[in-house]
Amino acid sequence: MSITRKLKIGITFGDVSGIGPEVIAKALSDSSIRKLSVHFVLFGDTKVWELARRFAPKNAHFAPHIFAPSYIKPQALASLKKESLPSLDFHKKDFGKISPVFGAWAIHWIREAVEACQSKLLDAMVTGPIHKEACHRSGFRFKGHTDFIAHLCAVKNYGMMFYSQPLRVLLLTHHQSLKSAIAGLKIETVLESILLGFEAMKQLGVRRPKIAVCGVNPHAGEAGAFGNEEIKILSPAIQKAKERGVTVSGPFSPDTVFHSCRNQEDTIILAMTHDQGLIPFKLLAFDTGVNMSIGLPIIRTSPDHGTAFDIAGKGKANPASMIEAIHLAVRLRVNVGRGKKRELGKLF
Amino acid sequence: MSITRKLKIGITFGDVSGIGPEVIAKALSDSSIRKLSVHFVLFGDTKVWELARRFAPKNAHFAPHIFAPSYIKPQALASLKKESLPSLDFHKKDFGKISPVFGAWAIHWIREAVEACQSKLLDAMVTGPIHKEACHRSGFRFKGHTDFIAHLCAVKNYGMMFYSQPLRVLLLTHHQSLKSAIAGLKIETVLESILLGFEAMKQLGVRRPKIAVCGVNPHAGEAGAFGNEEIKILSPAIQKAKERGVTVSGPFSPDTVFHSCRNQEDTIILAMTHDQGLIPFKLLAFDTGVNMSIGLPIIRTSPDHGTAFDIAGKGKANPASMIEAIHLAVRLRVNVGRGKKRELGKLF
Repeated sequence: MSITRKLKIGITFGDVSGIGPEVIAKALSDSSIRKLSVHFVLFGDTKVWELARRFAPKNAHFAPHIFAPSYIKPQALASLKKESLPSLDFHKKDFGKISPVFGAWAIHWIREAVEACQSKLLDAMVTGPIHKEACHRSGFRFKGHTDFIAHLCAVKNYGMMFYSQPLRVLLLTHHQSLKSAIAGLKIETVLESILLGFEAMKQLGVRRPKIAVCGVNPHAGEAGAFGNEEIKILSPAIQKAKERGVTVSGPFSPDTVFHSCRNQEDTIILAMTHDQGLIPFKLLAFDTGVNMSIGLPIIRTSPDHGTAFDIAGKGKANPASMIEAIHLAVRLRVNVGRGKKRELGKLF
Repeated sequence: MSITRKLKIGITFGDVSGIGPEVIAKALSDSSIRKLSVHFVLFGDTKVWELARRFAPKNAHFAPHIFAPSYIKPQALASLKKESLPSLDFHKKDFGKISPVFGAWAIHWIREAVEACQSKLLDAMVTGPIHKEACHRSGFRFKGHTDFIAHLCAVKNYGMMFYSQPLRVLLLTHHQSLKSAIAGLKIETVLESILLGFEAMKQLGVRRPKIAVCGVNPHAGEAGAFGNEEIKILSPAIQKAKERGVTVSGPFSPDTVFHSCRNQEDTIILAMTHDQGLIPFKLLAFDTGVNMSIGLPIIRTSPDHGTAFDIAGKGKANPASMIEAIHLAVRLRVNVGRGKKRELGKLF
């Protein structure tokens, strides 16, 4: 790949009755995106796209884009041959509707984009939000994008990082009850997550990443007074990671670590639970947070919001997070492609 | 009490080797505090005060203040007769020292101030930070100020509220392991806390308080998919509180409720655990957060920081939280004294 070749980034529509297509259209007409030397390959429906384009500013110019079937020949992808999908006929009145048809197509587009990334037809992919119930009604059996893509890539050790300017957060556990998250803590998984966080930061172009590990308990247990997970699990895991040469510290008192790591560009915080990490992340980066899969052989980012059925089809959706997700995908591709961060002329 | 009588607010030094006396001296020289029509009664040591005063700005003017023994006759307080305290001889070199002597005096001053409040010799009290280990070494057997003061007031149903401009947070549980906090959840204690939060907001002068209850689990359990505490405990407690006429809603997804309640002056958030409430609170109000005891027959506020031994005696301590704690004590006294909020001329 030469520096002058344009990157190709796939974008999946997600659930067509949500705000995904709208934020994609708005993002592709954003001036910061149009400046990128990138070709966008859309995985979605052309009729839905015509509706979505109307939500972009009047007389908007769009970044170069094309639909997947025109760019990626169906025979290049195994999934197209295997699939037998219900027909998609979306109308304005369908915004906000939970439908297994929309769920099935959302999943299909993800699979196509993943295969295109695996075949090097794409450099990275950005995913629009899917609706869990719609997907499950169509027979989908994964918790979400990350688990599904990891399955397609046959990867067992992966994670989900939340990226924003003020905070970078990795979740040790996510969609499970708080009780089971604590009960399931293990030295090995904490160690794996520390190493994943280290790799993710390297991928982001940080030369000397630092990992800050949150405690589980108030004040990180106060030397065992309020729980012993820090002593029995976290400290040994941190020690093992140090022995592997990772710059890692903690366990820190959860109520102050986010404040002290705020705006520390070289630091990623490993949170023990979904809310421990996402309460501060969403507070500081509600509209601009980005989700990034880590530990996968392909690059995938996504906006940090859902389908927002309540405002779908109304033109009110904020594209800031989708815009950031695209920029992050470009940044990750560039760093991975070169193995290190370097000047990239027009790309930024 | 006539409107023209000056309020009398007690301030306890806390641990003399911490930053308590320094932030008190800085606060009493702050222009917003000096404007208050308040007499401050200090519970502390005059020699320590001479050291602390030097940390206030050069040529500072101080709000009217006097030491407790001069204002409150020892015979008025039972505790002075009972106590037999080690002598306090504090020197510059003692900053940051953990000492049972300092712990014992810190506790003594709290007891004196509480008794003065109970005897109506004071309108409210503000407490400087104590050091847990120093107190425990002196024989203190409480978790902190709130538990101790509740014990002195013989109150069983009380709480600790974190007050700031952007967020008001009540903790259902605090200094205990996360595991035990979840295991100990009960409909009755959640209901009690909702009612306490309602009372606290009334005390703050909010006419129609709203209580937002956090879920325990990610996405508030997603209808039981990630834990059932919301279904079994929180929803029934919320229902019971509604039946008592309280405006309460939830359980909300913990990762978004703090964002949506930000700057909602009439709303208090009931957090299930220490960190669920304090991670967002400290992120938005690190220097200006205030602690407020609720459910007690007396008014007590305090800055939301500890003794900060690492910077004690260096003049670096930020008095913002102590200043806010004093203002809040005044506001609470005024609302409680009148049973409602009203114009107070010079007081604000």
